[in-house]
Amino acid sequence: MHRIGIDLGGSNIVVGIVNSGKILHKKSVGTPNNINAETLIAKIVRLCNEILDENKIELSKISSIGIGVPGSVNPYTGELIKAPNLGIYNINISHGMKRLLGVDVYVDNDANCAALGEFEYGAAKGTTSSITVTLGTGIGGGIILNGKIYHGAFFGAGEIGHHVIKTGGKLCNCGKKGCWEAYASATALRRIGGGKGPKRIFGDARSGDTKAIMALERYIEYLCEGLANISNIFQPEIIVIGGGISNEGEYLLQLIDKHIKGKIFDEQILTKFAIAELGNDAGVVGAAMLGEG
Amino acid sequence: MHRIGIDLGGSNIVVGIVNSGKILHKKSVGTPNNINAETLIAKIVRLCNEILDENKIELSKISSIGIGVPGSVNPYTGELIKAPNLGIYNINISHGMKRLLGVDVYVDNDANCAALGEFEYGAAKGTTSSITVTLGTGIGGGIILNGKIYHGAFFGAGEIGHHVIKTGGKLCNCGKKGCWEAYASATALRRIGGGKGPKRIFGDARSGDTKAIMALERYIEYLCEGLANISNIFQPEIIVIGGGISNEGEYLLQLIDKHIKGKIFDEQILTKFAIAELGNDAGVVGAAMLGEG
Repeated sequence: MHRIGIDLGGSNIVVGIVNSGKILHKKSVGTPNNINAETLIAKIVRLCNEILDENKIELSKISSIGIGVPGSVNPYTGELIKAPNLGIYNINISHGMKRLLGVDVYVDNDANCAALGEFEYGAAKGTTSSITVTLGTGIGGGIILNGKIYHGAFFGAGEIGHHVIKTGGKLCNCGKKGCWEAYASATALRRIGGGKGPKRIFGDARSGDTKAIMALERYIEYLCEGLANISNIFQPEIIVIGGGISNEGEYLLQLIDKHIKGKIFDEQILTKFAIAELGNDAGVVGAAMLGEG
Repeated sequence: MHRIGIDLGGSNIVVGIVNSGKILHKKSVGTPNNINAETLIAKIVRLCNEILDENKIELSKISSIGIGVPGSVNPYTGELIKAPNLGIYNINISHGMKRLLGVDVYVDNDANCAALGEFEYGAAKGTTSSITVTLGTGIGGGIILNGKIYHGAFFGAGEIGHHVIKTGGKLCNCGKKGCWEAYASATALRRIGGGKGPKRIFGDARSGDTKAIMALERYIEYLCEGLANISNIFQPEIIVIGGGISNEGEYLLQLIDKHIKGKIFDEQILTKFAIAELGNDAGVVGAAMLGEG
């Protein structure tokens, strides 16, 4: 049986037909602005029908649909509590879509879906607990414990980007001061590097540019402060690093390895670090997995 | 059926006969220095026999024995991996004691036992997830998720005292810089208050002493930085505060309530805060519960 996974992002809606972690077909459209929840649901339903039609797959071959949304979700009821970037609050996406399609629909947070994708079919495959950290414009986090997404008591756990690593430090976009995100996101690296893009900074550092090396070392120190905090608190088997910064691959892992050592409380029992393997597909793959729980 | 709970501390060994969260009988002896693991096990076994004899309870009435130890433990095998304060490494306490007593023996970390005690019979009773934070000489942490102790992948999760809240900050006893423990333990409050004891600082602040109030506000800011981090990452239903500082009760909770507001990522969904209810008994009660899992 196939499953449909949907990554409902602030810019694009990506829908994929997935089987055993492989995306067989994928389709992407821009996320409409300023539309109400009902119209958005209708649009997603239409997108599902289109991708099925275009690939001559019958709806009866789809065992479940999963959607990752940028916001807080009650995964047990399918209610989207709030997605500020989409301007949508308190709507039951799951019921709405199931009524139109007749297929079970599961909803979860987008970072949780990406973490589940990496856990089942990516860098954390074969482990029992993993935390996926996405280093992009901000820092996202998805926590998998004992093979399941960990939601917290009120479905909002995993705001690891907004744990404070420097009391009284830099102002974060969230309004708090000293958040990890303000020091270790791709945006933060750009600031530390005097406005240069992360790719450029990494490139210059690899070529031996002293200024770039110094900027990068500062960034990695901040990055490792938060990674070590996560490891000291949760001690997951593996921490998976995704997002734009993770494109630096093995070089990034080497830097982390060098800088994290003194920061782990018990150095004998190191959480492993790995680069995300599914890239932008993690969200779609993970969303498709939601129905397997 | 009764159970025996043992709190094996650096200074004292406390053994209790427990039934449904109530300690019926309790006995405490000093922890011997510089003895090997076998002698320590023999001493604990003798202590168990003594408390049973003194209270005319037969060993056959004891369904299990649980021990909380200050160190890292593999709770599945009963092996104490290391307890640096006791100078004991790699010994299977569980097997050793079971051989001598013929009763199932469970072992876990002492902070985990205290958290389990508070979860089952104390301040977190009736919740599904709680984190117990002990503010004493250091900061200890025990995590209960879905009703069970959360151990992490290598049985060392919950080192919340050693998550960094101030990158490059004060040197902690663990050798790292900027740990929460270096800012929010009772020891840290004493330092912030210019050497006065926590009880004195709280007392002076309650009486309106400006200097004490300022010291206390600084301390509470640091305390809340870490509490908010835990809440933003884990979002447990409740955070239970134990240890010496928790004796300040309702006044402490009011201060936390005042200072934590702006630090929680999603202010609509606040983790509750409560004062530990079992005091020093939490470890014995929790240890006795280990066999119920």
